Amino acid sequence: MDDVYARLFAGLSQPNQEAMGLVRRRSKEVLRPVGALERLDEIAVWLAGWQGTSTPSVAAPAALVFAADHGVAAGGVSAYPSSVTAAMFRALQDGAATASVMAAALGVRLVVVDVGVGRPTGDIREQPALSIHRFGECWETGRVAVSELGTTDLLVLGEMGIGNTTAASAVCAALFGGGAELWTGRGTGVDDATLVRKVAAVDEATRRMAVAGPLETLRQVGGAELVAIAGAAYEARTRSIPVLLDGFVVTSACAALEVAAPGAIAHVFAGHCSAEPGHRLLLEKLGLEPILDLGLRLGEGSGALAALPIVGLAARCVTDVATFEEWGITR
Amino acid sequence: MDDVYARLFAGLSQPNQEAMGLVRRRSKEVLRPVGALERLDEIAVWLAGWQGTSTPSVAAPAALVFAADHGVAAGGVSAYPSSVTAAMFRALQDGAATASVMAAALGVRLVVVDVGVGRPTGDIREQPALSIHRFGECWETGRVAVSELGTTDLLVLGEMGIGNTTAASAVCAALFGGGAELWTGRGTGVDDATLVRKVAAVDEATRRMAVAGPLETLRQVGGAELVAIAGAAYEARTRSIPVLLDGFVVTSACAALEVAAPGAIAHVFAGHCSAEPGHRLLLEKLGLEPILDLGLRLGEGSGALAALPIVGLAARCVTDVATFEEWGITR
Repeated sequence: MDDVYARLFAGLSQPNQEAMGLVRRRSKEVLRPVGALERLDEIAVWLAGWQGTSTPSVAAPAALVFAADHGVAAGGVSAYPSSVTAAMFRALQDGAATASVMAAALGVRLVVVDVGVGRPTGDIREQPALSIHRFGECWETGRVAVSELGTTDLLVLGEMGIGNTTAASAVCAALFGGGAELWTGRGTGVDDATLVRKVAAVDEATRRMAVAGPLETLRQVGGAELVAIAGAAYEARTRSIPVLLDGFVVTSACAALEVAAPGAIAHVFAGHCSAEPGHRLLLEKLGLEPILDLGLRLGEGSGALAALPIVGLAARCVTDVATFEEWGITR
Repeated sequence: MDDVYARLFAGLSQPNQEAMGLVRRRSKEVLRPVGALERLDEIAVWLAGWQGTSTPSVAAPAALVFAADHGVAAGGVSAYPSSVTAAMFRALQDGAATASVMAAALGVRLVVVDVGVGRPTGDIREQPALSIHRFGECWETGRVAVSELGTTDLLVLGEMGIGNTTAASAVCAALFGGGAELWTGRGTGVDDATLVRKVAAVDEATRRMAVAGPLETLRQVGGAELVAIAGAAYEARTRSIPVLLDGFVVTSACAALEVAAPGAIAHVFAGHCSAEPGHRLLLEKLGLEPILDLGLRLGEGSGALAALPIVGLAARCVTDVATFEEWGITR
């Protein structure tokens, strides 16, 4: 699996160093003490690098939410039945769900992509989540979803899928070790008994699987939307589109890319840190500092969407604020 | 001083409990796991209470930035000379400063109010910052600024004034004890030698002053914009306008109100926690949980403005998301 995809990671595009340098310099020349908005300046520099311009902006943001069902949900690892995935898929499409409301409020194009709603993956406790064929389909669906967006200057990645924090925990446990308990949290808010089943499921899944490369790990113990997210993040990289990550599931999918080819997700920023303990740990492992840390735990892209206005402001705070020189003040 | 103002705090308006109850209930009925966006739901409930409606929104936000100079700046406690206050005042008015750029991007009316630019307060190391007469003027200016805003559904309070984190530190040390070092940080980014002078100035100011009530403390060791901010926050309370606090200086001014009359700032929310160590401590003392925690340290209202979109989203995520019942799903 990983051998097949290895060539994709050769010669990945790099950020525009000149644009980054210009924005970094201007961030030190605008009317405020150097470093007073350091975290925002970093965001502006990152945005400039991937947008390839010294005047970065968030004018055409888009969000992709990938939805799918999980065989492991039959094992009672979630507070909700699998049927909720389909219901929420419709709600997201029809503008009734949280992420659709956020996207509408923010002027973000939201596209919801079905990669297996009502077509659950294999139960990861017993078998690979996806066949090699379906892995390829999901990866391609993720890539195509990005390519069909047209002009996009910031991409939010989100997901919906009952049972998918179990898959994300298994992916992280397999990628980074440390055991099932370390990576498993309460997801949508499961009770103690469900949490015990969830930890056991993650443990079973990772024990069943032989040592494997990161993409094979996604195939074995991940799920359809995780693979699509990885494909989408990869495609965004080839197009130099900066990506804002949502929560644990999205970050775990991208973590597989980073393990596959260190630096592969240099174009991503963490929108937030969720209430999932595994998410905080994962962000640390990836060296990602989240913009928001509000204990959100919804998914759908909601945490990243909540952070999106700050990315836009960060850019404006460099491009639109006057410099000391322009304002005629010597420091 | 405090006796004169005591009557103002009798019979303060309270939030609309019915509106809060309705929003709290709806936040548990919308299409997501209960508590999945708990921090956002709390913001929506708070907004509903002070706006007095079960459909809270941020449609007419405004920001007041109060600017003034400080006599203590002559003591070399800042990285910048007092003249910068006037320059930044003009930049804020003319749309060239960070907060004005943020406000424009967010559709927030920004009003900059001069309460003593180029007219420094007394040096708090040696004398009261303000005469009783000027205290009254500043307090009234703050109140009038709010009353002249017209319809406002969310108010950001910000400030600009070289030397004012020294004043804020002195206010906090006087209000809460603990010593000058505990409350004094690097403000705009002062070097070690300046920090030593700054701590000494805070220490001198608080030692000079006799034990005093919280408003007298603002008069003695605060400053003109701190008093105006307190007056503005008070006026917002009388008008049931929810207030989003910026950083250390704004929060210290409001802390005096809270000490004067516990509950007096129930209508405020902390926009962010700044890099000032005293700010984090102060938020804890006041029981305020900030929305953002990005180590920002600019003032001007910038931290609160960065958090403002999240307040608006929080409201939409309750009012605009469908309920399970509306969507025909049983849980």
